[in-house]
Amino acid sequence: MAPRARGGAGNRRNREQELLDAAITVFHRKGYPAASLQDVANIVGVLKGSLYHYISSKEELLARICVASHAQATALMDRTVQLPGTPLQRLEHYLGELALWYLHNIPRVSIYFNESRWLTGERRDTVRTQARDFAAFVRTLIEDCRAAGHLRTDVDPRVAAQLIIGSLNSVSQWYRPDGLYSPEEIATAYTGLSLAAVTGPPPRSATGPAIAAS
Amino acid sequence: MAPRARGGAGNRRNREQELLDAAITVFHRKGYPAASLQDVANIVGVLKGSLYHYISSKEELLARICVASHAQATALMDRTVQLPGTPLQRLEHYLGELALWYLHNIPRVSIYFNESRWLTGERRDTVRTQARDFAAFVRTLIEDCRAAGHLRTDVDPRVAAQLIIGSLNSVSQWYRPDGLYSPEEIATAYTGLSLAAVTGPPPRSATGPAIAAS
Repeated sequence: MAPRARGGAGNRRNREQELLDAAITVFHRKGYPAASLQDVANIVGVLKGSLYHYISSKEELLARICVASHAQATALMDRTVQLPGTPLQRLEHYLGELALWYLHNIPRVSIYFNESRWLTGERRDTVRTQARDFAAFVRTLIEDCRAAGHLRTDVDPRVAAQLIIGSLNSVSQWYRPDGLYSPEEIATAYTGLSLAAVTGPPPRSATGPAIAAS
Repeated sequence: MAPRARGGAGNRRNREQELLDAAITVFHRKGYPAASLQDVANIVGVLKGSLYHYISSKEELLARICVASHAQATALMDRTVQLPGTPLQRLEHYLGELALWYLHNIPRVSIYFNESRWLTGERRDTVRTQARDFAAFVRTLIEDCRAAGHLRTDVDPRVAAQLIIGSLNSVSQWYRPDGLYSPEEIATAYTGLSLAAVTGPPPRSATGPAIAAS
């Protein structure tokens, strides 16, 4: 009976994965608040009622997507801290890998970054903690660069981390798979610009007195 | 009768502005797809039906918000091209002013950046053209810097412009009026990091051979 039992469990896992994939498509296309379980059921090709064998609510689907995405993000962080090399090399590696993960998984990662705010209660607390951990990791990488003397000293690592994460998060708004640039080209440009932002000399020294803001 | 006629027109304009302000609040809080004209009517304190004296649909409200925001963005671009100084000073000035505009108008500008994609038909075409003009303006400022020799040559101005705009667009996700940083501090950090990103030396030269991406 063991093979049959495994087959049953496998089928259930396959069906759950199918639901999550459909939910990723729907939440990304319509935005979570406007998406419905009926939309998800339509993609999977089942009656809405049968979804409740697998999940209890639309919010549970969103939570599961975010948990799975955070596990991927955590794995990337774990690999990064084990790398040899300088802090700047670790930052460079991490940003490049993060960008490629993002670009190859735009619907999923875009939901993780942008739709998780619709969760409520404990789920909301969990994703907020995860989002803080994620930003804190980038901040720590930047702080390590500063401690190693790679960093301009007028950069606040906390603000720099948010802006660097944010510029990647915006890529889903303009990146097109059939566009001018490949994911690898964008990841390289993103990493190079982000590193220069935190390591480059304060630009005003090259331009003379700045124009006063009006 | 003239004063009375002006008063009537003024009242209508005031009520329209009140509607737009309420729509900005609702669209920002709930996201456009999930927001309803009933939500807008609730904030203004009128029956939903009376909104139709002023606007024909929820989409018209979104379009009006975007048109008004684009007019503000255009005014900032117009002021920038008239500035004296070097291209790098113009870029610095523009990014600083853009950041302050954003930070002092987060609901409005966030809708302009993130919710305008829900428009349809001609309205959609219009906002897409405006978004392209906006990105092209930043790209042109960066290209002017390159022509003036201020820029590292390995930077693609098109990608740099999108990433620089994108990092600002993300600020609404983490900025809090009661948080650690004032709008002025964030604008200064944003401008400094963005300028260093495009002017800084290619960072790999400082770190030796990069770690190969796995």
